Amino acid sequence: MELSYTKQRSECAKGVQKSELVIKNGSVVNVFTNEIIRTDIAVEDGIIVGLGSYEGKTEIDADGKIICPGFIDPHLHLESTLVLPSELIDCAAENGTTTFIVDPHEAANVSGAKGIDYILSQTENVPANVYVMMPSCVPATSVEDNGAVIDAETMKGYIDNPRILGLGEVMDCHAVLDGDKNMTDKLKVFRNKVIDGHSGYLHGKDLMCYKLAGVDTDHECCDFETALEEVRAGFQVHIREGSAAKNLDAIVSGIVKNKIPTQSFSFCTDDKHITEIREKGHISYNVRRSVELGIDPIEAIKMATINPAKAYGLPRTGAVAPGYRADLIIMSNLKDMEIEEVLYNGKPVKEQQNGKKPEIDKALFNTVKIKDLSSESFKLPVKAPECTVIEVIKNQILTSMKTEAVPVKNGEFAPNETYSKIAVFERHRATGKKYVGIAKNYGIRNGAIASTFSHDSHNLIVIGDNDEDMLAACRALAECGGGYAISNGGEVTVLELPVMGLISNRPYDEVKQRLAQMIETAHNMGVPDGIDPFVVLSFLSLTVIPEVRITPRGIFDVIKNDFLNQS
Amino acid sequence: MELSYTKQRSECAKGVQKSELVIKNGSVVNVFTNEIIRTDIAVEDGIIVGLGSYEGKTEIDADGKIICPGFIDPHLHLESTLVLPSELIDCAAENGTTTFIVDPHEAANVSGAKGIDYILSQTENVPANVYVMMPSCVPATSVEDNGAVIDAETMKGYIDNPRILGLGEVMDCHAVLDGDKNMTDKLKVFRNKVIDGHSGYLHGKDLMCYKLAGVDTDHECCDFETALEEVRAGFQVHIREGSAAKNLDAIVSGIVKNKIPTQSFSFCTDDKHITEIREKGHISYNVRRSVELGIDPIEAIKMATINPAKAYGLPRTGAVAPGYRADLIIMSNLKDMEIEEVLYNGKPVKEQQNGKKPEIDKALFNTVKIKDLSSESFKLPVKAPECTVIEVIKNQILTSMKTEAVPVKNGEFAPNETYSKIAVFERHRATGKKYVGIAKNYGIRNGAIASTFSHDSHNLIVIGDNDEDMLAACRALAECGGGYAISNGGEVTVLELPVMGLISNRPYDEVKQRLAQMIETAHNMGVPDGIDPFVVLSFLSLTVIPEVRITPRGIFDVIKNDFLNQS
Repeated sequence: MELSYTKQRSECAKGVQKSELVIKNGSVVNVFTNEIIRTDIAVEDGIIVGLGSYEGKTEIDADGKIICPGFIDPHLHLESTLVLPSELIDCAAENGTTTFIVDPHEAANVSGAKGIDYILSQTENVPANVYVMMPSCVPATSVEDNGAVIDAETMKGYIDNPRILGLGEVMDCHAVLDGDKNMTDKLKVFRNKVIDGHSGYLHGKDLMCYKLAGVDTDHECCDFETALEEVRAGFQVHIREGSAAKNLDAIVSGIVKNKIPTQSFSFCTDDKHITEIREKGHISYNVRRSVELGIDPIEAIKMATINPAKAYGLPRTGAVAPGYRADLIIMSNLKDMEIEEVLYNGKPVKEQQNGKKPEIDKALFNTVKIKDLSSESFKLPVKAPECTVIEVIKNQILTSMKTEAVPVKNGEFAPNETYSKIAVFERHRATGKKYVGIAKNYGIRNGAIASTFSHDSHNLIVIGDNDEDMLAACRALAECGGGYAISNGGEVTVLELPVMGLISNRPYDEVKQRLAQMIETAHNMGVPDGIDPFVVLSFLSLTVIPEVRITPRGIFDVIKNDFLNQS
Repeated sequence: MELSYTKQRSECAKGVQKSELVIKNGSVVNVFTNEIIRTDIAVEDGIIVGLGSYEGKTEIDADGKIICPGFIDPHLHLESTLVLPSELIDCAAENGTTTFIVDPHEAANVSGAKGIDYILSQTENVPANVYVMMPSCVPATSVEDNGAVIDAETMKGYIDNPRILGLGEVMDCHAVLDGDKNMTDKLKVFRNKVIDGHSGYLHGKDLMCYKLAGVDTDHECCDFETALEEVRAGFQVHIREGSAAKNLDAIVSGIVKNKIPTQSFSFCTDDKHITEIREKGHISYNVRRSVELGIDPIEAIKMATINPAKAYGLPRTGAVAPGYRADLIIMSNLKDMEIEEVLYNGKPVKEQQNGKKPEIDKALFNTVKIKDLSSESFKLPVKAPECTVIEVIKNQILTSMKTEAVPVKNGEFAPNETYSKIAVFERHRATGKKYVGIAKNYGIRNGAIASTFSHDSHNLIVIGDNDEDMLAACRALAECGGGYAISNGGEVTVLELPVMGLISNRPYDEVKQRLAQMIETAHNMGVPDGIDPFVVLSFLSLTVIPEVRITPRGIFDVIKNDFLNQS
């Protein structure tokens, strides 16, 4: 890291020379003293050099405005936005987020180190600080069929990269608790950096063991009691408010009610779509909503700035003080927190969105390889009186495991408005592995929805009420290199995601329009409100989120950490 | 750094195996939530593995007791104690301090890298965590005549030592503000580690410039207003309460009155003598006194534990949580905070004081080399009607610069009960450099006091009211390799400090007894209460503490950063 100090900046700090930029007379949030102090901010060459009375070559009048540090999102995945990473960064930056700690584990699960390099290169010259956590679970667990393996040896090649802050969300908690050698080797590689957790369901002695292993953070808490238990154990808890998982109200209400200090809390989005960012904001939403729930505005700003900056040891980030980056938000006032201007590196972010897209490695295209796709692939004979059913839950990525009698016709499962057929096909190496099961409350009728974006192995997942539409949707994705597909009574619509089967190379607005149409179609086909047809589907294979999932190898009981014995 | 996690510890965390030690039913201070939670603490192989309900091979009943993390002193000098470093560590550890961040700048100023290696080796196997800051100012400033130069190149040799946390107190503020190349090179070497400051007198734009240079901490604030200004600028402020400088009451009262968050504050001792530690405690005193002044007890404990641990990125230190070091204090209650037991590495500190002293490098002996010491050396002719006078201030290491008429006899300065003669002789290379001046309010009559322990260059300093006694005291020290000497009407008493002229190799109690006698003698000779004869003398050469000092090159105006033109 370069020293903030230079002779030139020093002269500006001393007021001997005029700084490039001086923001005059703003009411500046001091994250160290919890004060709001009326002062000028002098900025030279992207760094804050002084607070006090300064003159600048350029001056901004901030009289009556609140100025705070740019917000930090300490845990998110850029792949979920379906478009080139810079599009989400640009959008979130306009909403005040100037630092992003991203975990490229979708890209890594499909394309390994090349996937990580893709995220690094696509975010190198965006107008924001983008750091990367090394995906810890590629594959997510030993039961996965994904596209690549990232082991401790591969990780060592990244340890000296200053943009790699540590080990990404350690989802395979069982491997940690069991002292699995591969996992321990990875923890050792990053023992002097930050290790992100992914628990939310460990308690008591299991949680102790998980913390002992060196895990520093968690963003999976859904309720206040779990968050409090984790903070007591020494975790930094990122309060998540994304498109699928919305945990903020529950946790923040508990903090307010119980008067818990906020120092060990930060905010994150994990997965939040650009449209929702445009409508509601990014980390700015978490800040505003927390204030509505009763958090002091300065504490809320600290949760979005200095708290995550300290948790990750981010250089010169998260405060308005000499030597810190001039990543700043100018707000209307502390009540509405309307963001009027965002500076990155001392310049408005909008002026720095250059639209240049680095070239994409050809190896990241044509990644969908499936063996033997035919109408036979979807048969599901039912022998037992009751079957295991994956129940989806509105506004949650959690599922419930049920054992229920399901409709049967001619000895085969017969989907209806309550029970859908769901199937997963391994799609990276054409191994032919696949499994068919039953989902509840997804509601689809007269068709099928398929996706190659399905956490974390990103196999081809499809859900529907008849085999013909399921086959048609899958075939469409196999042919175009991946994406989202709907087959509605034989009529197929596709959103192509040719980069790793995860990401489009078309502009966001084009993708958004197409996606909105497809989501509308899905809801018209019976998917109820409160269930995003593609997002919910994308989590139904994720073997680390309770309670039950489906993979190409079978139905997986997350709590027992094992496949069910199916008839 | 090793991973806290091991298979063995993991089994203990899960409760599958009994831990080596379980502290049962204590009321444990949680520095993350500000709660006190009644729980067991399980310890295996020196590390806390879990909190909850545990069984141990050994169990301690802590019912009704308060348990908190061991205290941290983030800034102190071990040399000031005059005895082998392990003696201070042992004494402070019994008083609850289990982590020390030491700056060996006295040793380095006399013996360079060998002095630093001495402190590293002498503290390697003590029952406490001892980290070292690389002395930044050896020599203290460019106007000094000390024993060695430690430049950026020398420092690079220590950068990978995990016990070296960063750059020690950057006293030469002017070099920082002026962008001096040597200083900038040193700041660059440690740009990714912690840089300790030493200001207390910079304000406004100068303070901005100093912070911009990368300085992280300061322990020199004497009043609340300065401390607040520094915290606002992003400094971690260590509130100092040592033997000479006592800043706690002023700063803590301000924090309480103004309700400033305590997160950016820690406690330090800087220089505190063993006798005072035994009588009043170490960091434990700062904690107790802060509570008396109105700080919440848990906040006070955080200022002594997690705050400095975070400021220095100390691994697994400063909290009672899984994965953290089992450095623990068992207290009577939160009111008296009487320390009943201190554990380091999960074992009582007293049981781990092995008394083994590493051998001392022979190069550290016989370091006092003075050219031309005779009665002529002390002549001080007075020509001007008024002279510059160094006024000592009770209970302070600050001095005032006065210009006053002084008593004169036969054209020479004639000391009396108000004005003493003071002289400094270069003693490392026998260059013959020396200077004679006038001090006020030291009060010595019928004799002289001399010392080779004189910050930071540790030249030979002597103060007295007649040349014969001054010569006798100096000669005694030149002959014995350094130490403290008093000559009282020709009768000479010496406390030998043969290691670098700074440290005795005799046991503390022997040194203490001798020193107490000599201090009593000094007070009997007129040195008033409120002035420790040797400690105050030891600071009169330190060219970075306002307002005025004396060195072998002349009288130094600290504010103007230059020598006076003397007649």
